[in-house]
Amino acid sequence: MRICRFDNDRVGVVVGDRVADVTEVVSEALPSQQWPFSRGDAFIAALPELRQRLEAAAADAPSRPLAEVRLLSPVANPGKIIAAPVNYMKHVEESREDAGINFGTEISLIDRYALFLKANSSMVGAGEGVEIHHDDGRRTDHEVELALVIGKTARNVSEQDALDYIAGYFIGLDITIRGTEDRSYRKSLDTFTVLGPWLVTADEFGSPESVELDIKVNDETRQNANTRDLIWSVAKIISFASHSYTLEPGDVILTGTPEGVAPIQRGDRMDAWIERIGAMRVMVR
Amino acid sequence: MRICRFDNDRVGVVVGDRVADVTEVVSEALPSQQWPFSRGDAFIAALPELRQRLEAAAADAPSRPLAEVRLLSPVANPGKIIAAPVNYMKHVEESREDAGINFGTEISLIDRYALFLKANSSMVGAGEGVEIHHDDGRRTDHEVELALVIGKTARNVSEQDALDYIAGYFIGLDITIRGTEDRSYRKSLDTFTVLGPWLVTADEFGSPESVELDIKVNDETRQNANTRDLIWSVAKIISFASHSYTLEPGDVILTGTPEGVAPIQRGDRMDAWIERIGAMRVMVR
Repeated sequence: MRICRFDNDRVGVVVGDRVADVTEVVSEALPSQQWPFSRGDAFIAALPELRQRLEAAAADAPSRPLAEVRLLSPVANPGKIIAAPVNYMKHVEESREDAGINFGTEISLIDRYALFLKANSSMVGAGEGVEIHHDDGRRTDHEVELALVIGKTARNVSEQDALDYIAGYFIGLDITIRGTEDRSYRKSLDTFTVLGPWLVTADEFGSPESVELDIKVNDETRQNANTRDLIWSVAKIISFASHSYTLEPGDVILTGTPEGVAPIQRGDRMDAWIERIGAMRVMVR
Repeated sequence: MRICRFDNDRVGVVVGDRVADVTEVVSEALPSQQWPFSRGDAFIAALPELRQRLEAAAADAPSRPLAEVRLLSPVANPGKIIAAPVNYMKHVEESREDAGINFGTEISLIDRYALFLKANSSMVGAGEGVEIHHDDGRRTDHEVELALVIGKTARNVSEQDALDYIAGYFIGLDITIRGTEDRSYRKSLDTFTVLGPWLVTADEFGSPESVELDIKVNDETRQNANTRDLIWSVAKIISFASHSYTLEPGDVILTGTPEGVAPIQRGDRMDAWIERIGAMRVMVR
């Protein structure tokens, strides 16, 4: 099943090129909460129970063309957004060779850096677009990545069991300014984490181990790779993370970007695509 | 006013060595929400309106000795936790000299690194204690810092106006494993962000510009400094951050640690103190 969020916090099931509006089912099923709210995303946590009801409701629900809705991030309330740095060897190599990427800082492998965080406030959906913050010529790059959301609490899980904790997959754009600042800063400016276009449930998506992904900017292919070249596999990232911090339903993980990162500018049109997820258009302003 | 959270999500006003339980006032005042929940902390956002009612209720509310309650983080639902690296010159110097801190990585100044993030899932209160994750002799350090919570949405604010966006102050312990990994990883393990013991409202706290802080471990003083030696002042940190990402009510900022960072071990007792906030005892397990 493909689930999206759109317009004014509506929830939709994506069928072909239309969105069936199942917001009422979700509102009725999820209890309202008093402050303090539980950590993580209540909808993602309830998805296993809600799934059949959503599927049934989608058959009769009012629907609209996908092209007419404004897509939001498929996860509304992430607890944290985790990302994997330098997780494709060819991206390691280009980062070492290009001073515009490395800015004189050391570039090593993911084994040396482990994982980093992106701010929840940087998260947007495909329909919200990316904002360039710097007018001084400073480089802002696209990075396309396979991304996922954790579906149930994970602590000290093995690589073998890790994929069982995934609720669904989507495309992640890890937008980045180049410079000397801390990684978690350079990647956390407002609009710098684009998730979408929708969530594909883990059962429909299947294995994340050999998945094609690419991104075009203004019709020119910039990145094109396959997750079989990940240095840390999806399962390893989740297992490793779960040995460090508790992973909660709604925690988002971006699995790393391949070679071909390059600058974007105001007015650019980014078209990202991942096999078994689909295509996502994001405008730069 | 001094406000704490304790036991099973109770809210208290701290008067002397007692806690007046004002949970009912908060529950009545804050509307329940349907998923998706608004970003940030609803209580902190409502604090200006609630303040007088809390103060009035505290006079008649049932109270308990502070020593008998289990203190939680004074912020329940932070949007993000931001921290300032190497923001005291003597800590820069000790980090450069001690390979046990720098692990062969470059140590520069905060101007080069800007800010970093800590995971919301790493946050605990004084009563919850700190957990040592590594049994292999890997170094886990204490770092005591003046911390604060943002009270209203801040975007592109000047240094001159920055302090107006603070709801209150508390002590922050930025617990850290030393190593080569990304800063936002090494400081985000579960229980590695201790906030407390309570929030002192910004009006009662006054200026953050010359504030004494220290931490003892098992009665031995380890860090002892004054915020007048911050390289980036509190106002500069907030202004800078607000030019990068939107600061929301409930966003927490740790302002950086002075010299004297050192290892902690299971069974240690940390006693942190900050002028005009008070003392916080945290056990290591």
